[in-house]
Formats: sequence, structure tokens, C-alpha cells
Amino acid sequence: MKIAVLGTGTVGRTLAGALSALGHEVVVGTRDPQETFARSTPNAMGTPPFSEWHAANQHIALETFVDAAAAAELVVNATNGAGALSALSAAGSANLSGKVVMDVSNPLDSSQGMPPVLNPVNTDSNAERIQRAFPEARVVKTLNTMNAGLMVDPGRLGGGDHSVFVSGDDADAKNTVTELLRSLGHRDVIDLGDITTARGAEMMLPVWLRLWSALGTPDFNFKIVR
Amino acid sequence: MKIAVLGTGTVGRTLAGALSALGHEVVVGTRDPQETFARSTPNAMGTPPFSEWHAANQHIALETFVDAAAAAELVVNATNGAGALSALSAAGSANLSGKVVMDVSNPLDSSQGMPPVLNPVNTDSNAERIQRAFPEARVVKTLNTMNAGLMVDPGRLGGGDHSVFVSGDDADAKNTVTELLRSLGHRDVIDLGDITTARGAEMMLPVWLRLWSALGTPDFNFKIVR
Repeated sequence: MKIAVLGTGTVGRTLAGALSALGHEVVVGTRDPQETFARSTPNAMGTPPFSEWHAANQHIALETFVDAAAAAELVVNATNGAGALSALSAAGSANLSGKVVMDVSNPLDSSQGMPPVLNPVNTDSNAERIQRAFPEARVVKTLNTMNAGLMVDPGRLGGGDHSVFVSGDDADAKNTVTELLRSLGHRDVIDLGDITTARGAEMMLPVWLRLWSALGTPDFNFKIVR
Repeated sequence: MKIAVLGTGTVGRTLAGALSALGHEVVVGTRDPQETFARSTPNAMGTPPFSEWHAANQHIALETFVDAAAAAELVVNATNGAGALSALSAAGSANLSGKVVMDVSNPLDSSQGMPPVLNPVNTDSNAERIQRAFPEARVVKTLNTMNAGLMVDPGRLGGGDHSVFVSGDDADAKNTVTELLRSLGHRDVIDLGDITTARGAEMMLPVWLRLWSALGTPDFNFKIVR
């Protein structure tokens, strides 16, 4: 499948690498490829510059949001939550129309200090905002409840015996995403329901952030025991 | 231990019965015992009237909030989230001072329709409101992330292999609550940190509610795999 991963951070790189390794034709999208390549120092989170990652992954092209989305069959929103709508607008409504948009973002807002709060929250979600802004896209929320390493290699923790959620209005789109998740090793994919259920998945981030702190590692995941 | 369970709904009854069976001296607190006893029909949720439960649990006294709290060493807030502050005010600040207040409530707000949203949320929590309103109480948030049956009998699901959280500012109070949780069969008690981490636990309710709907049963729980 032709996949565009929008976002050049840890999540975008990790998903792009793993999906490419599965045989998909993957490109990474960014606002300004030249600017992204020009960065030579780690960002505030300590993430190494993109050029360093790309040197080891030269088969994955870096393109503008619009070029990446235009050629793709499936678009992954791996931008930070606050930048999602702007990135997808740059990709272009026509380039998302009819396509599966897999949204893995979290609307974390650190402007009031740490730990971040969510915005939007409770009566809205990032996934719903994306679906409303691009009504012809087939948005599926998933993977936002775990770290990037576990997204692409769930088997590295507890034998893969934990859960991932999908939310969306389009059953076929959820099937496509579920198949992709299974190919990455996810065995327990739970369909929460329509796109409004993404609120539930996004609102797990506050406890996720506290667990990271309490457990001293981001390498954990939720299993729904039933 | 002398325990007052405030609240006469399913959660209050279930906790009162289980804590009494463990040998604690348990009373249930309500606003107006006569009024509570006088109800003769199931409530809107289909819960049978309190008198029916009490006929089978006559060793557990029903008292006013203030009488119940005054005699207790540990107070359980099992009121509905919206009524928590009013119930605890009726119990009286002096009757909570220095005591462990185990808050199991969720601030669900159904006034805008179903499913309910949370209020407060994101930048505050019910547990924090209770701690601020009663600064001399030692509030511990716990058990709000599962149904009443699992609160008192975690072993009935998946061999008890799932998790429960505690949040609070007072380490001794968290130890007391953790011991109580272990005596009920909880094996994986995770200390999330101070009382503000209750936001994380309370914000799991939206996904809990969607999971109930998606799985067709409330008999499930979160396990933190790590």
C-alpha cells in the first residue's frame, strides 16, 4: 500500500520505518523538506535531527505534506496534536478525500506547564476535529495510547498480550487499519465505536503520563482484561 | 477498623458488604435514613430499594452522614460524583479531620445526554476538590476505574491479574488504603503519585464507558502490562 506518514518526529519515523519494512511504499511528509533536512541539532525532547535518521533510511523519501498525501492511499497523521489540522490542511482536502486517515496524535497542551493537559477534551477530540474538517476523509483513531516503540513492535512487551483501540465512522476504514495493526503484531484490536469514542482513547493520556512517571518507563501498555 | 461508607447505591452497598465480611465494623451513611428506608421501588438505574438490601444485611447500620463519619476511622466516599462535596460537608469537616477518606467517585455529568462527560476534568478532579474542601482529611483516590463487583472481588475476572490505582498526598493514608485493597484481593496496586494524579484515573471513565458499550459487559478491567 502507498502510505504517507505526516510528521518527522519519533512517532512518524518509527511508523514510517516499520511500515516500510513490512513492504509498503512509504513517504514521510513535512511542511518544508529543506528546512527539516537543514536541522542539525536534537530538538527540545532530545530527538536527533531528521537527517540523521534519514541517512539510515534513504529508501524513505521526505516530501511536502501535499506531495506525500497526493500519492498516498492511506495517510498517517503523526504530527503533534496541536499541529494536526494545520498539517492536514497543508496536505489538502482533495488529497485526503476517500482515503483512510489514521490519526495517532494526542492533543497535548503544555502551555500551562507540565504535565500537559488535553485540548480539546471531554466534549470533543482531535480525531473528531479532523473528521469534521475533512468530511470526505475516513478517519480512524488508533495507537495513541502507547509509545512509538510499542506501536510497531507490541511483542517486545509481555509477549504482545495487551490492547489497542480503533475509533471511526467508516467500517471499511477500521478494517483496513485493523489489518495494518495486526501486521505490526497487535493481537487485541478493540473497536470502540464511532469517531466520538476517540475521546475515550485520547483521555487515557493523562493516566498514561502519570504511569510513565510512576513506573519510570514509557514501556508499558493497557490490556483490557475481560 | 471502623469504616463509614457514604452512599447507598450499588457501589456503597457492595463495598459495605465486602468490608463487613472482612471483619470491619461498617456503617452506611446517607442524608436521611428514614427517607432512604422509605423508598420502595427501584431507582432510575434499576437498583433495588435500599431496604431490600438491608433486610439481608441487618448487621450493617444505616446512619446520617454525620453520625456515620463521626464514629469512623476511615470514610469511603461512594456517593455519586456530583453529590460528593455536599455529602462530605454534611458529614462535617471535623469528622473527616485526620482520617483517611477513600474516594471512589467519578464526576460523571449526564446533563448534556449520554454518554456522560466529566465535570470537573483535565485541570481538576473530584478527588482534588474534596482534598481542597477538607484540607485536614487524608484523601486517597482509588477503585473508580472498575465496576463495584470487581472492586471487592477482583479474582472473579482473569484470576485477578489486573490493576488498580491509588492517588494521594499522604503516604500513610495510601498505605492504609493499599492494605485494604490487598485484603479485598487486589494484587497490582499502582501508586500514581499525589492527589493531582487522580485526574488521570478519573479521565479513564470515558474509555471505560465506551468499552462497556463495545464489549457488552461492565465486567472488564485495565491491566498495566510492563
